[in-house]
Amino acid sequence: MKAISVLGSTGSIGTQTLEIVEEFPDQFRVVALTAGRNLTLLLEQIQKHQPEVVALADEELVNELRDRLNELPLERRPNKLPKILGGTDGLNEAASWDHADLVVTGIVGCAGLLPTLAAIRSGKDIALANKETLIAAGPVVLPELKRSGSRLLPADSEHSAIFQCLQGTPWAENARLSTGVPNPGLRSIHLTASGGAFRDWSTEDLKNATVTDATNHPNWSMGRKITVDSATLMNKGLEVIEAHYLFGLDYDQIEIVIHPQSIIHSMIELADSSVLAQLGWPDMKLPILYCMSWPSRLETPWKRLSLKEVGQLTFNSPDTEKYPCMQLAYSVGRVGGTMPAVLNAANEEAVAQFLEEKIHFLEIPKLIEATCENHKKDLKSQPNLEEVLFVDSWARNAVREKVDSGLNRVVFLGS
Amino acid sequence: MKAISVLGSTGSIGTQTLEIVEEFPDQFRVVALTAGRNLTLLLEQIQKHQPEVVALADEELVNELRDRLNELPLERRPNKLPKILGGTDGLNEAASWDHADLVVTGIVGCAGLLPTLAAIRSGKDIALANKETLIAAGPVVLPELKRSGSRLLPADSEHSAIFQCLQGTPWAENARLSTGVPNPGLRSIHLTASGGAFRDWSTEDLKNATVTDATNHPNWSMGRKITVDSATLMNKGLEVIEAHYLFGLDYDQIEIVIHPQSIIHSMIELADSSVLAQLGWPDMKLPILYCMSWPSRLETPWKRLSLKEVGQLTFNSPDTEKYPCMQLAYSVGRVGGTMPAVLNAANEEAVAQFLEEKIHFLEIPKLIEATCENHKKDLKSQPNLEEVLFVDSWARNAVREKVDSGLNRVVFLGS
Repeated sequence: MKAISVLGSTGSIGTQTLEIVEEFPDQFRVVALTAGRNLTLLLEQIQKHQPEVVALADEELVNELRDRLNELPLERRPNKLPKILGGTDGLNEAASWDHADLVVTGIVGCAGLLPTLAAIRSGKDIALANKETLIAAGPVVLPELKRSGSRLLPADSEHSAIFQCLQGTPWAENARLSTGVPNPGLRSIHLTASGGAFRDWSTEDLKNATVTDATNHPNWSMGRKITVDSATLMNKGLEVIEAHYLFGLDYDQIEIVIHPQSIIHSMIELADSSVLAQLGWPDMKLPILYCMSWPSRLETPWKRLSLKEVGQLTFNSPDTEKYPCMQLAYSVGRVGGTMPAVLNAANEEAVAQFLEEKIHFLEIPKLIEATCENHKKDLKSQPNLEEVLFVDSWARNAVREKVDSGLNRVVFLGS
Repeated sequence: MKAISVLGSTGSIGTQTLEIVEEFPDQFRVVALTAGRNLTLLLEQIQKHQPEVVALADEELVNELRDRLNELPLERRPNKLPKILGGTDGLNEAASWDHADLVVTGIVGCAGLLPTLAAIRSGKDIALANKETLIAAGPVVLPELKRSGSRLLPADSEHSAIFQCLQGTPWAENARLSTGVPNPGLRSIHLTASGGAFRDWSTEDLKNATVTDATNHPNWSMGRKITVDSATLMNKGLEVIEAHYLFGLDYDQIEIVIHPQSIIHSMIELADSSVLAQLGWPDMKLPILYCMSWPSRLETPWKRLSLKEVGQLTFNSPDTEKYPCMQLAYSVGRVGGTMPAVLNAANEEAVAQFLEEKIHFLEIPKLIEATCENHKKDLKSQPNLEEVLFVDSWARNAVREKVDSGLNRVVFLGS
């Protein structure tokens, strides 16, 4: 029986993780949950999973949660009330909870970085769904992994596909799990991209793209922010940077291929030219389950893939003009140091501004590029955690200020 | 440095194996060659690879080969002349040659069975390209493998794809290499089929199919017999039976999917619903090399797969009416015992008759079906080698006699 901690239990990754725990009650039990503000759902989760510890990002909600637990009618109250913690220290304590075998890090954004680091420092196995951990803090995280022996198991579908295919390669388990260590027989990887909401739009038409257009993803059901990242292809750019750190690959070993059906989740090319791919319906539950069951696999009743039903799989090159964020991510990744943290933060803020309809869709890459450009003079090539957190907040502010001041218009019109 | 024996060195698998040896002179050396009648090519191979032993199927050619070797000008004569053997005993001695690490069994047809068995009995690793070994003699071979510890590495592209994908599964190496032992986490396999020369023909048009039509394969460059098997889809039916023995699968765990581009070489579906596939250009050299380098992989300069260049992969269900041989193979496989040997032999003979233009393309399945039907009363469920060889020759004769007597016309017209 594997003991699981779920960071961000009320989010998309968190709820799917708990669904899996319910599907396999003999395999998994929940020992720790952390959440943001959704107390109603968290309360249900506590009743169902009876964790040993619960932590809330917002310290002020701790008492409210305690009250609501105590107000539950006796028959619905957990047998043993969990320890309830709050704030950064509380999240970190829950994330490094002693009884956990695996920590699923489903907290979105930079908020997930500190608890994920706490889990890594405590030597836990990590089901990594928080991209910032490696994208923003790769140079900080890699030595911590080495120090603690924590193992990163990728929970997003593309990196999970690579990870699943790598199991079949002749290099030792150690090489596969030593994040950032190059694998001598791995020639390249091919990350597949659906092409997002605008895959059939012309570059010209993108000028009129609305929030509704951008958040209407054809294949995957995801949060609004990630759906916009999918429309700009920044999601793929960020995955390229993450793959660089996870698999110890040079950027020219990582390719993006547009594959609108999202059936092949990614591929690896081996030294002898053989290509291995992992396929499935677009559903996050499979990669999450694989993190949880690895190195084994569990029997599921989930819908079986039928390529006869799918009929055809198509592939083409991403249009670099239409998707400037993709190239931006490659350049930023090659610069390294604090630059990917700036890219990630500037992107988060720019997408937020777009979702609030304060900027236009095509301004997203412009704002990110300008912010990265401004960071060049302050680049740290081997940053520590404080420096990463500093540039993260600097980049968000820089984007926000530019939009508030109307300067983004200048950037945009000047292009 | 791995020592390789090549059975059938002048055939398609044999020559490709020797090309690989030439490409990797630091990795492989040739210790034994066996061939049929092509002395000129064999002589070249002896000069180039300097094997320790050479065996000829036809004993009468032994002296001719010896003479031709002795007649070579001194500078082209091998440093040390190989031992030259002939006939069945000679083939068996070469196949179980002590210095070999791996025996590549490239002899086509039932002629390859005895030397392959000799190699298995001597405990060698086998790169299996001779399908009769398992299809006709599965019940004989499985216990021999267990006894000697010989390991079967599949050299044809579909089974190699399955084998490559299985490397990534969580079951021990032993389970993967214990031919015939079920793998508890393997839910199903999907063998891809190009659809052969007639994939775009209607069932009606097949009535007019000529030898030229049938031997014109769209993707793979193969011998004429195998190209006809590809047109009838019997090749896939035979692969289904082979996969049953190789991977310990029930017949309802083995699916055929038509995939005209021949880029996905086959797939496995795991217990959790994840699907792994192996991809590459259609080229036999990669699966042969994998047998030779397994469990490692070697760096090749071969053309890299580009799905962007391929553009699309399509999939559909095989048309059972158009390809009766496929269903026939499933039924025969389920019967087991000596029945698959009859299917295989009847097919070889029927295809030979077709290639000699003595029968019509659509008579191939009819003749095979009738022969299998006639065998029912004599079926042995746990045959020994002699019984397998007996039914093999019985089935060939049965087809030949039926064609010679014109009875096949009755079968055909009666349908």
